[in-house]
Amino acid sequence: MGITGAAGLVERVREGDVRALARAISLVENESPLRAQILASCFPYSGNALRVGITGSPGSGKSTLVDGLVHVLRGQGKTVGVLAVDPTSPYTGGAILGDRIRMQDHSNDGGLYLRSMATRGALGGLARATADVASVIEASGKDVLLIETVGVGQDEVDIVRLADVTVVVLVPGMGDDVQSIKAGIMEIADIFVVNKSDRDGADRVEKEIRAMQSLASQHGDWVPPIVRTVASAGEGIAELMAVIEKFGRWLDKDDRGRARRRAFWSERLREMMRHEFMREMRQRGFSEEGLAYYAGEVEAGRENPFELVPRLVGQAFDEDSDKYRDGP
Amino acid sequence: MGITGAAGLVERVREGDVRALARAISLVENESPLRAQILASCFPYSGNALRVGITGSPGSGKSTLVDGLVHVLRGQGKTVGVLAVDPTSPYTGGAILGDRIRMQDHSNDGGLYLRSMATRGALGGLARATADVASVIEASGKDVLLIETVGVGQDEVDIVRLADVTVVVLVPGMGDDVQSIKAGIMEIADIFVVNKSDRDGADRVEKEIRAMQSLASQHGDWVPPIVRTVASAGEGIAELMAVIEKFGRWLDKDDRGRARRRAFWSERLREMMRHEFMREMRQRGFSEEGLAYYAGEVEAGRENPFELVPRLVGQAFDEDSDKYRDGP
Repeated sequence: MGITGAAGLVERVREGDVRALARAISLVENESPLRAQILASCFPYSGNALRVGITGSPGSGKSTLVDGLVHVLRGQGKTVGVLAVDPTSPYTGGAILGDRIRMQDHSNDGGLYLRSMATRGALGGLARATADVASVIEASGKDVLLIETVGVGQDEVDIVRLADVTVVVLVPGMGDDVQSIKAGIMEIADIFVVNKSDRDGADRVEKEIRAMQSLASQHGDWVPPIVRTVASAGEGIAELMAVIEKFGRWLDKDDRGRARRRAFWSERLREMMRHEFMREMRQRGFSEEGLAYYAGEVEAGRENPFELVPRLVGQAFDEDSDKYRDGP
Repeated sequence: MGITGAAGLVERVREGDVRALARAISLVENESPLRAQILASCFPYSGNALRVGITGSPGSGKSTLVDGLVHVLRGQGKTVGVLAVDPTSPYTGGAILGDRIRMQDHSNDGGLYLRSMATRGALGGLARATADVASVIEASGKDVLLIETVGVGQDEVDIVRLADVTVVVLVPGMGDDVQSIKAGIMEIADIFVVNKSDRDGADRVEKEIRAMQSLASQHGDWVPPIVRTVASAGEGIAELMAVIEKFGRWLDKDDRGRARRRAFWSERLREMMRHEFMREMRQRGFSEEGLAYYAGEVEAGRENPFELVPRLVGQAFDEDSDKYRDGP
């Protein structure tokens, strides 16, 4: 499958062929040689879905909440993609896939596409892979893309950065967890959900969020609202969807949404350039073996990395051809 | 302060001047123009400390444990650096600094140096900054460097990767947390600590770890031992230190420790090259404004990023001079 093959595959993705979509995603995820062509072919047809990022601690009921949102959206006749990302699991699928057995009642619904992703281990790799897969799902023409991520660290912040709307899910009685997530998460939350709000302590969580908000940086004229839900009973889901739509309209005003996406692309382009640079170096003969050789020299104290690296990169700019092959 | 200045500063760091050490770290952390010179000057004098990484969920008592290890090590006459990293906090210091009030009883101890770091927000930025600061502290001649990090995500995995020995701290009764950390952490743990082991459930945590271990990838002939501690009462700390030393001796056999450091440097060199590439691009006129311009073009759909990036990077290799200035 060459360039025509990649374009043909994306054509089938656009026509709603679910198996083509699954295949395109797998090729992109697995760094197939077709990855760049698939993504380039998807790009003109992506960017039209509303991207909703949903994050929170393990056990906060995000999956059930996402399930509820899917029901509401499908009831409105909207097509939905769900991308469930688990940065804590190095194994494919894992925990999230288990939860997804729940979603089987949607299995014959052509308007819904669900995909799970687990960490690849590479630095920044998961955020990049998530953005790639999101583009491919968008190219299939979904109206809304729900990006669900487990946890509350920098990974999750990077992953949800590609969302237009970020929903942070908290639950009463998490104690230390609420403490640990609040700092990094306060700035990215557009909407808070207090799920399992029939439990004791919902008022306290809400109060803590409000206290944090007064310290956190301002969000323009949007004060992140707090929506209470009991996702397992379907309570509050319609209200949450209404708040998400309200935020969507707020984004549309004064091109705020476009400014967000520009900021996202600034970061993404930088990351893509770094990655492309290493690919270009490899093509010029700077292999994994070359890297391992220099790592050995540094470990042995024979090369000072802070002198070596500027030298290697400077050479790439100064000359061309296969010079890196001489290294080891 | 020029090159001589940087070398002079590092000379004072090596002589044990604590204020010079604090200043060198700040210059490195804040991306001062002297950063590269300071790191290059520190490099020949770093790499001699035993680096112990300590990670675990918030509330697992890592700080108290670190405090205990410091007491034991200082009692043995060893000099100690402590680097406390909090990826969940975007604010300088924050939670960890608060805990560190505890460490005030060491404040007149010249054989101990303590530094807190919080996240910088940049992708991969914290792992890089941690490695940089670790090198500077090592250059001051400490025997042992304790690197403490809060949380259990990919950040922490990246941060502890620079350690020779990785200690993962669990506590009884964390429920979901143990579930969520186990997958990513099992592979990096050299030693497990069950802290607060006087609580109910210590046996269960230990059983869970053992169950995980049978599934996880093998660690050569080292089966990560489980050490029970009650750090707040000083119980088990000496035993933990003995196990750390035992692992250190295991590392020394067959050059295992050196192989680990080579693997670390492979990753680090790759990251440094990426970073250096973007610095070189900036020097050639590819400014932040240029990036923002292209981000706007991509957002508007006028540029396809998967064609743009190879073009920009390819140009860098093909020509030289200020070509990127023509972009916007």
